[in-house]
Amino acid sequence: MSDLNSLDKLVSLTKARGFIFQSSEIYGGLAAVYDYGPLGVELKRKLNQVWWASMTQKHDNIVGVDAAILMHPKVWKASGHVDGFNDPMIDDKASKRRYRADMLIEDHIRKLEIDGKTDRVKELQHLLDTSGTRKSLTEDLYDIIQEEEIRSPDSGAFDWTEVRQFNLMFSTQFGALGSGEDSKVYLRPETAQGIFVNFPNVMNTSRQQIPFGIAQVGKAFRNEVVARQFVFRMREFEQMEMQYFVRPGEDEEWYNKWKEERINWHHDIGIRSKNLRYVDHPEDKLAHYAKSAVDVQYKFPIGWQEVEGIHNRTDFDLSQHQEFSGKKVEYFDPQTQERYIPYVIETSIGLDRCVLMALCDAYREEEITDDKGKTETRTVLKLHPKLAPISAGIFPLIKKPELMEKARSIQSELSDSFKVMFDEKGSIGKRYRRMDEAGTPFCITVDFESLDDQAVTVRHRDSMEQERISIDAVERYLRDQTKSWKPES
Amino acid sequence: MSDLNSLDKLVSLTKARGFIFQSSEIYGGLAAVYDYGPLGVELKRKLNQVWWASMTQKHDNIVGVDAAILMHPKVWKASGHVDGFNDPMIDDKASKRRYRADMLIEDHIRKLEIDGKTDRVKELQHLLDTSGTRKSLTEDLYDIIQEEEIRSPDSGAFDWTEVRQFNLMFSTQFGALGSGEDSKVYLRPETAQGIFVNFPNVMNTSRQQIPFGIAQVGKAFRNEVVARQFVFRMREFEQMEMQYFVRPGEDEEWYNKWKEERINWHHDIGIRSKNLRYVDHPEDKLAHYAKSAVDVQYKFPIGWQEVEGIHNRTDFDLSQHQEFSGKKVEYFDPQTQERYIPYVIETSIGLDRCVLMALCDAYREEEITDDKGKTETRTVLKLHPKLAPISAGIFPLIKKPELMEKARSIQSELSDSFKVMFDEKGSIGKRYRRMDEAGTPFCITVDFESLDDQAVTVRHRDSMEQERISIDAVERYLRDQTKSWKPES
Repeated sequence: MSDLNSLDKLVSLTKARGFIFQSSEIYGGLAAVYDYGPLGVELKRKLNQVWWASMTQKHDNIVGVDAAILMHPKVWKASGHVDGFNDPMIDDKASKRRYRADMLIEDHIRKLEIDGKTDRVKELQHLLDTSGTRKSLTEDLYDIIQEEEIRSPDSGAFDWTEVRQFNLMFSTQFGALGSGEDSKVYLRPETAQGIFVNFPNVMNTSRQQIPFGIAQVGKAFRNEVVARQFVFRMREFEQMEMQYFVRPGEDEEWYNKWKEERINWHHDIGIRSKNLRYVDHPEDKLAHYAKSAVDVQYKFPIGWQEVEGIHNRTDFDLSQHQEFSGKKVEYFDPQTQERYIPYVIETSIGLDRCVLMALCDAYREEEITDDKGKTETRTVLKLHPKLAPISAGIFPLIKKPELMEKARSIQSELSDSFKVMFDEKGSIGKRYRRMDEAGTPFCITVDFESLDDQAVTVRHRDSMEQERISIDAVERYLRDQTKSWKPES
Repeated sequence: MSDLNSLDKLVSLTKARGFIFQSSEIYGGLAAVYDYGPLGVELKRKLNQVWWASMTQKHDNIVGVDAAILMHPKVWKASGHVDGFNDPMIDDKASKRRYRADMLIEDHIRKLEIDGKTDRVKELQHLLDTSGTRKSLTEDLYDIIQEEEIRSPDSGAFDWTEVRQFNLMFSTQFGALGSGEDSKVYLRPETAQGIFVNFPNVMNTSRQQIPFGIAQVGKAFRNEVVARQFVFRMREFEQMEMQYFVRPGEDEEWYNKWKEERINWHHDIGIRSKNLRYVDHPEDKLAHYAKSAVDVQYKFPIGWQEVEGIHNRTDFDLSQHQEFSGKKVEYFDPQTQERYIPYVIETSIGLDRCVLMALCDAYREEEITDDKGKTETRTVLKLHPKLAPISAGIFPLIKKPELMEKARSIQSELSDSFKVMFDEKGSIGKRYRRMDEAGTPFCITVDFESLDDQAVTVRHRDSMEQERISIDAVERYLRDQTKSWKPES
């Protein structure tokens, strides 16, 4: 874990520094939806770009697509989302509020746990885990709530409707009619299907042979009833997914390769190994489309949480689309002259969670001593320089015209390649502190000597050490330092 | 105009080469929604990045945001979209199909024009232009359709409902309830409001002083009834917008500055001047929020069309949000100690249209003579190298292991900085042709001599000229060539 010990602290930090704001905040916000501010959007874009390059630039057998959020409704019939992407909900007749039935039971179990009723907890947990095996899932959940006399958390009433399945997809009306099932479309609940339905088009136009992958970054939407824990569970979120199409029989080999390759990517963006782990999904907990699955988890202030999943999706999705569309989605192998539906290894990472992981892992509070011998706490984001929203601060030592002019010319030079920020306000120490909080890895100060020696002082965020660098070497210096950067262990 | 003389040709090209596919094509497509294929997504991402850098990297008083697509419904009440963002629609009772009333009349006028009824055309055009001045807009349109006995294009019937206003926003249900107006939210019909509602948060966290700008790239959605002309009018599209906040009274000066700056950007991405023009909006055609407005138009195969708009939005939007939210959105000027609601100069460009503009402007058909003296037509996309989906092709002359290995090592080196593509299939001539169609500016061939002289042949897409470059200078060479590239006039 990092120096952050709560999510609240993170929420405050990200808001105060302009990383993440509540959506539509001046109107009281929209639950479980967030906006990225000036620093957040830069971090998010850089993570997006680093991921994209790691997929499509570093592998010449991985190509990209960017499919629309609105897709043909049959896509979600084929994928199983129309029929199966549900949460079991129950309504409190007194307050008219709706709850997730399984979560009501979980909260109830936690209360019993606190009261030390260990035996009852075990029994109930077993009943919950085996819901759907006695009667239907909804009936089994209803029975538990009735047996336990679980009351509504808001009204305290014990006056429930039945448990019903509630679909998590947002729907809207498409075209001019504005009514009727014919024109109903969904906001995609995952980006993966945008890759699968484009598989034939990509195969026919990109001259790739199996194994090859298709990568995509884009928004997805889920009407989560219980959307909490900041940007961990949002109703609108962004995914970075790569589907790798392989020959059946070679799927587990590729699954293991991607498992390894993905953890390396996390190291490569500067996340410390001690805060990362794999958690394999046990066989009886696998999604209906998966043969094997593993989570990459990060040790957030609220505990270990999934950041990425790697899944062997078999030929489930492509077979479904072949069946529902009536179009062949087979691959023809020119060497062996075989036709087959490929297996798919998926790597799926949440971009928003990735932003948070990067922030949490970078966050430090350090005791330092200032020039006057006073101890203070510095808050610093030790982000990988390639992810830093601002690459360098440019400071004229004081507001003298000749220093300002020199600093502006350095800024203008560097801004061809880097996002830099000019700051002439306050003492150099204060300017350092502001840049520390923004995660800016380098601060460049122009002083009177600079006018003579054509050099500047570069101060390092992590070590706070300073060195003198010739002005015409600064750009190359920033590049080299960015490349060679490593996180503290 | 370019060598393209029709939109059909462009649609075929973009599909065949994997730039743009119809969305959900295997299910018959979704009208007016498109997906980007492997080459298209690279071009789109590069345009996005070039625009973003030109705004947030090259101006240190422009910062970014990335607001959610789902916003609080009051935002659209304040902006005027709930009440005013409508198209006048009429239903054919026979076929149950719905039409845009004004477009029915326009089509009717075009028919009269073909029939040479010039006087009647003039009268009707005047009646159409002045709709809403006699009775209401919907009633005036209805009257014209009745007077002219305009028939339904599909059924041929003359059996119409009244004309009614139809809102262009997509709506969906938010939260668990799934019914009722309370939980109704919209997919944003423009990205601008995401900037305006974040203005207070950005102002408070980014230490910017007026004038300063906020930039954003993101999706917007409009339920266009008549969505045609390929990606020009889509139901789901992407905008790149920058809102520049200025002191009232200085607005027209900034409007003119941005007008100039934006046309320079179009030149900077390699669009030829002869295909670009400004069209000022006449005062009586301005949107309700605008004081002045200009289109940047490009000469597409279907004629001059808007690619970008620059607007003086005054303080309309911020004032509306102040009124509807009850929160102050004023700026406090620390120098003059004044408080005021800033005026806004907007630059708004369609990313999808920008992709198409780049493709159209780059498209050439050239007569060339091959080694055997045979004349053929080469199709080539002379895209600016900084926009090219693939920066370089890497070719081993023939499939000998030592050439393959050398070529692979060059590929691996370059792929740290560039998207490159290895191609060992077919004659060098054929490989050049494929890269020409993809817009790849450089092809690097490794031959037997390369093993001795550690140099390669670099062939230029535009001139088809070749030169010998030392392997360790190739990366720098690609960088320099990309920087100095200019379009043919």
